[in-house]
Amino acid sequence: MRDSNHPNDDDLLFFAEEQEDAQGQGGSGAWQVLIVDDDPEVHKVTRVVLAGMRFDEKPLEFFNAYSAAEARQMLRDHPDVAVILLDVVMESDDAGLNLVRHIREEMRNSHVRIVLRTGQPGYAPEERVIVDYDINCYVSKTELTAQKLFSTVYVALRAYRDIRTIDLNRRGLEQIIQSSANIFRMQSMRMFASGVLTQLTSLLRLNRNAIYCQMSGFAATKNERDFYILAATGDYSPLVNRPIRSAVSPTVREDLERAMRAGQSLSLGNRYVGYFRSQNGSENLVYLEGFNGWSDWDRNWVELFCSNVGIAFDNISLNEEIESTQREIIFTLGGVVEARSKETGFHVKRVSEYSRLLGKLYGLSREETELLRLASPMHDVGKIAIEDAVLNKPGRLTADEYEQMKKHTLAGHEMLQHSNRRILRTAAQIALEHHEKYNGGGYPFGLRGEKIHIYSRITAVADVFDALNNNRIYRAAWPIEDILALFKQERGQHFDPYLVDLMVDNLDEFLKIHQAFPDD
Amino acid sequence: MRDSNHPNDDDLLFFAEEQEDAQGQGGSGAWQVLIVDDDPEVHKVTRVVLAGMRFDEKPLEFFNAYSAAEARQMLRDHPDVAVILLDVVMESDDAGLNLVRHIREEMRNSHVRIVLRTGQPGYAPEERVIVDYDINCYVSKTELTAQKLFSTVYVALRAYRDIRTIDLNRRGLEQIIQSSANIFRMQSMRMFASGVLTQLTSLLRLNRNAIYCQMSGFAATKNERDFYILAATGDYSPLVNRPIRSAVSPTVREDLERAMRAGQSLSLGNRYVGYFRSQNGSENLVYLEGFNGWSDWDRNWVELFCSNVGIAFDNISLNEEIESTQREIIFTLGGVVEARSKETGFHVKRVSEYSRLLGKLYGLSREETELLRLASPMHDVGKIAIEDAVLNKPGRLTADEYEQMKKHTLAGHEMLQHSNRRILRTAAQIALEHHEKYNGGGYPFGLRGEKIHIYSRITAVADVFDALNNNRIYRAAWPIEDILALFKQERGQHFDPYLVDLMVDNLDEFLKIHQAFPDD
Repeated sequence: MRDSNHPNDDDLLFFAEEQEDAQGQGGSGAWQVLIVDDDPEVHKVTRVVLAGMRFDEKPLEFFNAYSAAEARQMLRDHPDVAVILLDVVMESDDAGLNLVRHIREEMRNSHVRIVLRTGQPGYAPEERVIVDYDINCYVSKTELTAQKLFSTVYVALRAYRDIRTIDLNRRGLEQIIQSSANIFRMQSMRMFASGVLTQLTSLLRLNRNAIYCQMSGFAATKNERDFYILAATGDYSPLVNRPIRSAVSPTVREDLERAMRAGQSLSLGNRYVGYFRSQNGSENLVYLEGFNGWSDWDRNWVELFCSNVGIAFDNISLNEEIESTQREIIFTLGGVVEARSKETGFHVKRVSEYSRLLGKLYGLSREETELLRLASPMHDVGKIAIEDAVLNKPGRLTADEYEQMKKHTLAGHEMLQHSNRRILRTAAQIALEHHEKYNGGGYPFGLRGEKIHIYSRITAVADVFDALNNNRIYRAAWPIEDILALFKQERGQHFDPYLVDLMVDNLDEFLKIHQAFPDD
Repeated sequence: MRDSNHPNDDDLLFFAEEQEDAQGQGGSGAWQVLIVDDDPEVHKVTRVVLAGMRFDEKPLEFFNAYSAAEARQMLRDHPDVAVILLDVVMESDDAGLNLVRHIREEMRNSHVRIVLRTGQPGYAPEERVIVDYDINCYVSKTELTAQKLFSTVYVALRAYRDIRTIDLNRRGLEQIIQSSANIFRMQSMRMFASGVLTQLTSLLRLNRNAIYCQMSGFAATKNERDFYILAATGDYSPLVNRPIRSAVSPTVREDLERAMRAGQSLSLGNRYVGYFRSQNGSENLVYLEGFNGWSDWDRNWVELFCSNVGIAFDNISLNEEIESTQREIIFTLGGVVEARSKETGFHVKRVSEYSRLLGKLYGLSREETELLRLASPMHDVGKIAIEDAVLNKPGRLTADEYEQMKKHTLAGHEMLQHSNRRILRTAAQIALEHHEKYNGGGYPFGLRGEKIHIYSRITAVADVFDALNNNRIYRAAWPIEDILALFKQERGQHFDPYLVDLMVDNLDEFLKIHQAFPDD
């Protein structure tokens, strides 16, 4: 063994103190070796022999147990012990062997390397022990020179390191699978952005001491011309919804622009800039800072995970594109029909938004309010079946003409009902029922109260509110007081009283929608 | 060592023959041990000592190399060698040590366990060798008893098995990541079904000898009431597109029904039945057979992978639902407009299908034909702006009325052009140009030839073909010969000549579409 490393008693004391410090700093700076022996002399000699040893530039840290029972407790407290130097005969003749079984089978610790050192080979014949117990080395104390002890521990540490390395890789891969499943579940861009940030943070934490690694970051998406922040963590948390242009420092902006120019993600010093461009041209940025340097593991994992992020981003972009297209086609359909009555396409957009708002206030789920938002703009498609002469008659309708006009509910239902799609079936029902009245005085069936579907009751309120609140060819918009007066008068008559209350109590929000989609 | 296992010379010969057979059967039934030594006596003694040894119920298989050079070649030929018993001094004083470096650094084989057996420790001092070379055990030949050799090899095999196990797990996880990325990329249910089948097969092959594992299987999806086969491999390949009810044996059907009743996937004997139900209620089945039994690995991997399959299936089902809804809303929009002219909704469906077919025959990409299929049914939305009196006039239009009628192209363009969505922008262009003629004699602009977008030229052919081929209120359908005559006459006049040729040459396919969507 190396003389220069050979410590004297003073060195040993000093070394023990140094170890205490290292442990206080997180304990990851040394290889943990557990000596299990009922003979204190064996502990002392072992520490003397191994004291100056270093493996992979890290020193050793020793734990001492004088019985198998004590060793069990120590292993529970220190799950990262790398090597156990284990005696056989202690509190019982086979205490050491039982401990081996306990470690492998009860604690399910298959990583720690166990070196069995026996003083009485008679109690533990080599072949039987090697075959029956999952140990990694068998040595007789009588043949164990300092040289042999050194190389035995060195080889054991190397094996432990290799196993831990493969295992760390396994954990990284498992984290990637879990993280990817998580982001592939996301349906909206905002949830997705926040998921990517969270998962990337846990991936980069895997190989680091969490206490010393406070990461901050954000995810941003391009909206028309500017990137704005969709989700953020740590220091960046207050910046959600703000445009990158004004929210982040010039240094960070420079990083982001570098990634965009390069058209790819970059791992820089203590930060990561993810750049994702979907097949249909959408762009997303992820920025993460606050970890020290990049290991090969990090690069490998982040690359694997981010290739999944790219796929998920493509899927969500495509989905959002299809959903937006669907929404616009619905508005086009609604608008096309309204165009015959010389109404603007904004009438159906406003009815759609009022309906969604009422649904939300009423307590419908997000899924239902979205459904209502898409189905309500089609409530009047049946008007297509009404003749110009009736539909656009400037004066009052005759009784016959009114009967004809009322048929637009049945006609709309007929046009929409042949589909199995939820949106169209819902729209068919709204088309049929949106002129029913709460008191049973409506058409076509004279349904009453809760017999009229809540979607239809909601659309009825939204439709009338918007009609009165805007100019028509044959009359000006009503003053808002008159509209409220009418709704209060028709509360429980034409309209569901609870919906009228919701509208009156939240009038501001309704007027905001009115301002957002003006007829001009 | 065990006397009962101790072979004599006859046993050794017999044992060698047995090994030859085992290797001939795939070679995976034994632990491969490579003896590297320039002294034939060492080979002989080693084999005698280890001959009867078994580890994990498998025997040992020996390879012999008499120099480092020979050993390199053998390791290239046998990458699964578990343990190397390695001499130091052979063709040179450090031939053995150089081989260690070559194995770890050049061949990047970190799994094989290397036991260094030196006869002249002077050439390879223990501490230096242990620190500088990645070996797993250092023994001096002088101290190596039969007992010691046995336990050294036993411990080395155990370490090799453990490393291989963790590594197999790593490979499984990597395969899952790759397989999952693959299926998440799939946009259509058919590609997805086929992807799941392929990826599941490679996952289940990972832990098996590919030669003895011929898997067959299929993936099926529920369409209205019946499950039908979307993708298949092996024996099931000919069954694609057939309903499960009639295509597979009662035994297989019983397996599938068991999984459906249980509402979950099942791993049975030598087969796997995957059952997936998406959030919106779609159902998918995967059936795979032809592998022997299930290991814990298989179960673990398949479970991990299939949880991703479930997520991807949810996403694709949702996507298909949105796309189908979009398609139906478009047909509703087109149909609503046609309804005013008392046309059935099937006119726009047929125009849509004819346009897709013509696009495909013309050589447009799948993406473009899909776009055309969705945009072409909206070509006449501008008719909504035309008065009943003109639109539905039974007799011939006056010049003024005709001018008014012609405006439906501009009106349709105006209704559709305000969107950024590709489908709506395309529809706007088709609405504008579908009455242009190839010879420049059309309206509204009198565009000529290739100046008219190919989508508009295609829609023009499809629209006129369908109009003539069906009854209208004011006339009966034309005989097919008369329609063909008109198209031949208008070839290069009204219509793009190449498109007319495509239609004439593929008339059967056009008539099939006509039959699929009859007006009644």
